[in-house]
Amino acid sequence: MAKELTSRKENYSQWYNDLVIKADLAENSAVRGCMVIKPYGYAIWENIQQQLDKMFKETGHVNAYFPLFIPKSFFSKEAEHVEGFAKECAVVTHYRLKNDEHGKGVVVDETAKLEEELIIRPTSETIIWNTYKNWIQSYRDLPILINQWANVVRWEMRTRLFLRTTEFLWQEGHTAHATKEEAIEETMKMLDVYAIFAENFMALPVIKGVKTESEKFAGAVDTYTIESMMQDGKALQGGTSHFLGQNFARAFDVKYLSREGKLDYVWATSWGVTTRLVGALIMAHSDDNGLILPPKLAPIHVVIIPIHRNEEQLALITEKAESIRKLLESKGLKVKYDGRDTHKPGWKFAEYELKGVPVRLAIGPRDLENNTVEMARRDTLEKLVVSADGIDSTVTQLLDAIQENIYTRALKFREANTIKVNTWDEFREVIGVKGGFAYAHWDGTSETEARIKEETMATIRCIPFNGDTEEGQCVYSGKPSKRRVLFAIAY
Amino acid sequence: MAKELTSRKENYSQWYNDLVIKADLAENSAVRGCMVIKPYGYAIWENIQQQLDKMFKETGHVNAYFPLFIPKSFFSKEAEHVEGFAKECAVVTHYRLKNDEHGKGVVVDETAKLEEELIIRPTSETIIWNTYKNWIQSYRDLPILINQWANVVRWEMRTRLFLRTTEFLWQEGHTAHATKEEAIEETMKMLDVYAIFAENFMALPVIKGVKTESEKFAGAVDTYTIESMMQDGKALQGGTSHFLGQNFARAFDVKYLSREGKLDYVWATSWGVTTRLVGALIMAHSDDNGLILPPKLAPIHVVIIPIHRNEEQLALITEKAESIRKLLESKGLKVKYDGRDTHKPGWKFAEYELKGVPVRLAIGPRDLENNTVEMARRDTLEKLVVSADGIDSTVTQLLDAIQENIYTRALKFREANTIKVNTWDEFREVIGVKGGFAYAHWDGTSETEARIKEETMATIRCIPFNGDTEEGQCVYSGKPSKRRVLFAIAY
Repeated sequence: MAKELTSRKENYSQWYNDLVIKADLAENSAVRGCMVIKPYGYAIWENIQQQLDKMFKETGHVNAYFPLFIPKSFFSKEAEHVEGFAKECAVVTHYRLKNDEHGKGVVVDETAKLEEELIIRPTSETIIWNTYKNWIQSYRDLPILINQWANVVRWEMRTRLFLRTTEFLWQEGHTAHATKEEAIEETMKMLDVYAIFAENFMALPVIKGVKTESEKFAGAVDTYTIESMMQDGKALQGGTSHFLGQNFARAFDVKYLSREGKLDYVWATSWGVTTRLVGALIMAHSDDNGLILPPKLAPIHVVIIPIHRNEEQLALITEKAESIRKLLESKGLKVKYDGRDTHKPGWKFAEYELKGVPVRLAIGPRDLENNTVEMARRDTLEKLVVSADGIDSTVTQLLDAIQENIYTRALKFREANTIKVNTWDEFREVIGVKGGFAYAHWDGTSETEARIKEETMATIRCIPFNGDTEEGQCVYSGKPSKRRVLFAIAY
Repeated sequence: MAKELTSRKENYSQWYNDLVIKADLAENSAVRGCMVIKPYGYAIWENIQQQLDKMFKETGHVNAYFPLFIPKSFFSKEAEHVEGFAKECAVVTHYRLKNDEHGKGVVVDETAKLEEELIIRPTSETIIWNTYKNWIQSYRDLPILINQWANVVRWEMRTRLFLRTTEFLWQEGHTAHATKEEAIEETMKMLDVYAIFAENFMALPVIKGVKTESEKFAGAVDTYTIESMMQDGKALQGGTSHFLGQNFARAFDVKYLSREGKLDYVWATSWGVTTRLVGALIMAHSDDNGLILPPKLAPIHVVIIPIHRNEEQLALITEKAESIRKLLESKGLKVKYDGRDTHKPGWKFAEYELKGVPVRLAIGPRDLENNTVEMARRDTLEKLVVSADGIDSTVTQLLDAIQENIYTRALKFREANTIKVNTWDEFREVIGVKGGFAYAHWDGTSETEARIKEETMATIRCIPFNGDTEEGQCVYSGKPSKRRVLFAIAY
């Protein structure tokens, strides 16, 4: 196999990078921290988008588009928000270039300086709430349930393909409500949409919970999250849903006249997922041979490869393969027939394993005679000779089985690597040596949280909804704790 | 009607602005020259995207994503391109803000100055060809057929919603080929995709042709265009497809080893359409009552409105309306039932006329008795009482008829306002007084072209593929001309 990967055991981080590059998902660009999402990687993102967009629309949301640029002064309006976001961001200061007088090429035209600098959006709460201000007068204008698919920029110092890039693609929902209850309901509803998407489509088990004060979104009252475990035992935050209270309505002076004739500030939520979900997919399921993609998001479901010794055989196999392809496509599957004679079957097997195509069908001369097909599943690498009759239902069933199997496998892995710890030694063992999730008691203070992070790099991923609520003593300070929280080192 | 529009006759430009705002399509944002695309306007863009994306994929293209930022130096590599694009653009110079020491809020951190400024992409040829360089070694790597859906920024001084904005949304195809012939074929194929989309989906008749030297894309060998006529007789360029020759391959040193073992520069094309298509839709078909949308791109196909005097009637009508809604939706139509009792039927009629919903069904007590529905078509405002039996096929046929009628109407309008002119007086009459397209002889020089533009604001929209190729004398200079070209004042 030409494109060998570093093994996960040898170097998990290198394995990930190798895989992203060699499976043609993405690469670093000429611009520091920005990636090029290549067609195969983008096809996965398109499938994610399509499914999420459907779910957003089914829950009553519509799409819109707001400007890329945000006037600098908008950031200063919400005190926590500016601290969290306005600092590390791309700043547009000029709007023209000119030819250098001394022949040094193109230079910035200093006469074309903006009066107020523009920030490339790191998130759009400010520009959107400045807009909502004009859209909302009374309760009749509420709720506003808008989503935006867009690019955003956060000037990251250490970047990794998909997981953390300076520019990334995402969706950001921004809703406005007449009551606190309705806004909280929306926050929870969208967290559930994310959780259902992660589990049913990405085959990724998630833990739902609320962030601590120090981990929440800058400007939110509460941030809710879905957290999942990668194969190295680290946590990945897959999506967040924020209850913003009246913070942005206050900052941008957005009031509405209630049914009872009272003026009040509007209640808000925002929620988002990003291209890092592609990174999560890769890290959660794949192996040392390459990608393992959940069938529900795979750009290609089935690859068909001919095994032949001569042209005559190839012609007959191609005919058979094309009829199978048409049959499978009629069931809504995406199928590729790779009849290229420039590459050997073994090379092709390795290539589509690397690319994570869930099902491979190989057809040789004996299969033609026996009306059979060799079917291989990517998740377990098992092979089986099956009848060509009813191949459509055989493949459909296998795809369902793969989707379920990789979910179950990820869930078992998480369970095996999640430990209730009661002492500081146990905590350090789970976090620092074994790698995994630790459910531990915590005294509820930001100080303890910060100390633990400093000493172990572990953060509180969330206070889980479904967790052990028995009281105990903080694993670090020994002070009283109301319940266990979820600690892990995170991406 | 509360939301009255300026009439087209009174002030066409004001009519357009009124309509965009009042039909809730878009509005100006707090950032100069940038628009907010509101949900109803964005839904039209989503329908445009969905159909075009399908057509791109059917012609073998895949999507990918390249960075928003382009290093300044990339622009200097293609001489014409830098003149055309690098001048009026947004320049990122810093990557951090900080709190002002004197308490003046947030200011640019001068210590966080970029070594090389980054330009917000006005178009992506440079960053993409810099990337393709690493993807292409031999003819086996070709063709590359990639499209990107993205936002771009061009610092426009005079902006108009949808038609010309500083930031806009678009798609840009960027393809790489082993031969000149193949690249030209691709250029033409995508021009045809645009023309078919415009005519069959937007109901917009187009004239295909090639741009003159002064009107072509900066960096192209040839630019092909589709031009259409708006209701004020002006031209709107709907999409362009560029044959780039080897210009960008040379600029970024992208060579490939041919089948014959020879090193040569790669051949390129690029092609794009933007959110201005939404503006074209509006201006081509709509009237003084509001939008007229082609059914194939309308976010809502049918609105159903109850006419009732009491609650009891409303309940019965609602039942009937819901069964019709379900039937129509089962045929793939998007249907809205507006049973709100906060607004009168007359208000609703005007509202959905403004929004351009192609078909309106009204149901009153007498309709229940007679098993009928009042059906109104938006394009002609005609009303007809039809049987509720078979309403699905009645409506489907009407939608087809509307789609065809608005195309035919636009075509007739264009034909009535397109004139072959032979003298300079006739030219000025058509361009400056009547308003319309003038087919005129031109001596082929950029000088004459520039003088005509200066004197009349008319430009050569294209040298049409299907035009009069009889020789004659230039309408301006009297010099010999090989054929007539298309002149108009353009958006």
